[in-house]
Amino acid sequence: MKKLLQVDFDFTGPFGEEMSTLLMDLAQSINNEPGMIWKIWTENPKEQLGGGIYLFENEAYAQAYLEMHSARLKEMGVEKIRGHIFDINLPLSTINHAPMTEVK
Amino acid sequence: MKKLLQVDFDFTGPFGEEMSTLLMDLAQSINNEPGMIWKIWTENPKEQLGGGIYLFENEAYAQAYLEMHSARLKEMGVEKIRGHIFDINLPLSTINHAPMTEVK
Repeated sequence: MKKLLQVDFDFTGPFGEEMSTLLMDLAQSINNEPGMIWKIWTENPKEQLGGGIYLFENEAYAQAYLEMHSARLKEMGVEKIRGHIFDINLPLSTINHAPMTEVK
Repeated sequence: MKKLLQVDFDFTGPFGEEMSTLLMDLAQSINNEPGMIWKIWTENPKEQLGGGIYLFENEAYAQAYLEMHSARLKEMGVEKIRGHIFDINLPLSTINHAPMTEVK
């Protein structure tokens, strides 16, 4: 069953265009992570947060990615990492026009 | 600018099919919330979490919804509500196949 991984963490930047340019190679490499279907990159310069919303093929892939990602962030000096793996409630999400064609 | 709202909270259920049936009218009503584009309904019975990932037309709509939603959850006895409003980094999300046609 497909799973949604929600990650956010305290982050001091770079944000916006600078982030896009700096992390393009990282984004490309994320396409090669096992079971990764898509990622929405999230950022909040005001609250100093970074994060991502991911869709994975199953829980094991999502869990393995979360562990790898958390370790990589800690190496970069990021301390507070919040990660949760969720089921998607498809009937309710469908009512609310969620972009879920990959989940069906 | 479009914004992503990420909400999660301690939740004891109902989950899954029972949740879908019980909250169908609520989901329909969410389509009428100002500025709401889509919602992905998230749930984790094991960790006892509920939540949602939303796309809103702008920050003011996302903020107003978060305040209304938090108040409603508190009335239902939900205490720990975590909500963050994020920018979406579109160039990086596009590389990672994010379902972002509404954001462009």
